[in-house]
Amino acid sequence: METNPLIGITLSNWDSQVKRITTAFDNYKDEDMYLQVAPGRNRIIYILGHMTAVHDMLLPLLGLGERRYPNLDEFFITHPDSPETALPMPGELRTYWKDVNAAISAAFRQLSAEEWLDRHTMVTPEEFEKEPHRNRFNVLLSRLTHISYHLGQLALVNK
Amino acid sequence: METNPLIGITLSNWDSQVKRITTAFDNYKDEDMYLQVAPGRNRIIYILGHMTAVHDMLLPLLGLGERRYPNLDEFFITHPDSPETALPMPGELRTYWKDVNAAISAAFRQLSAEEWLDRHTMVTPEEFEKEPHRNRFNVLLSRLTHISYHLGQLALVNK
Repeated sequence: METNPLIGITLSNWDSQVKRITTAFDNYKDEDMYLQVAPGRNRIIYILGHMTAVHDMLLPLLGLGERRYPNLDEFFITHPDSPETALPMPGELRTYWKDVNAAISAAFRQLSAEEWLDRHTMVTPEEFEKEPHRNRFNVLLSRLTHISYHLGQLALVNK
Repeated sequence: METNPLIGITLSNWDSQVKRITTAFDNYKDEDMYLQVAPGRNRIIYILGHMTAVHDMLLPLLGLGERRYPNLDEFFITHPDSPETALPMPGELRTYWKDVNAAISAAFRQLSAEEWLDRHTMVTPEEFEKEPHRNRFNVLLSRLTHISYHLGQLALVNK
């Protein structure tokens, strides 16, 4: 499939943002993952689990497959972070994070420009007719800015 | 000019990120603009000036016009923030920010998809032949994620 250049550039920006935040996570030892990004704010480990759950959700949302780690939602989507909450171990989350990103990055490359512009699975054909911006590409951009939102926060951690 | 839908969606994401961060800035009174996003980190006013300078630079970088506020660079690009540095007043910066964003948002809408995929002004035709990703659209995406990077930081301010 020939790649639309605008899609190609967007996916390459996606990969580089994922790489930047993965490096940020990898730069913290497991024991430092419990540091907060700012006083009273999310712990690094919470951001890792949260990002993993959000990226995992892209599989069904974009019609690319089933969730791999729906068990994460209880910890990282439904409830805000709290220092008292026990979370899955850092090593486990690091593995899920890399697995999910490999899966979505590969699946992204199977979509044509037309498919990127088609509706995502949370919108009905009737809604999509009225709101054609509710397409896969829009979701991709909103998740792209979601990565950098948390990347900016990780840059503030005082080690 | 008929808009390429991928460009149209990207520009609408741009506008909504600019709107979100403008709301974040507007939610702080002038005197609160001197709060830091986290202990020892940038003050809100520094982020406002920094974002304004970076967006102002898009005018020459994308070949859309002359800089409007090159005088900001000395405060917000060349030097990191320091609580001892006197900066331009918040009201002044708020005006510059809105002016620059109105100018670039209007100029963005004059570019065709081909022009978005053409080289930006910091790359020579020879370099561009080897590195065709160094185009305007790539710059747009990198500045889009730059907005959300700082938006994530502004969300951490303790008032």
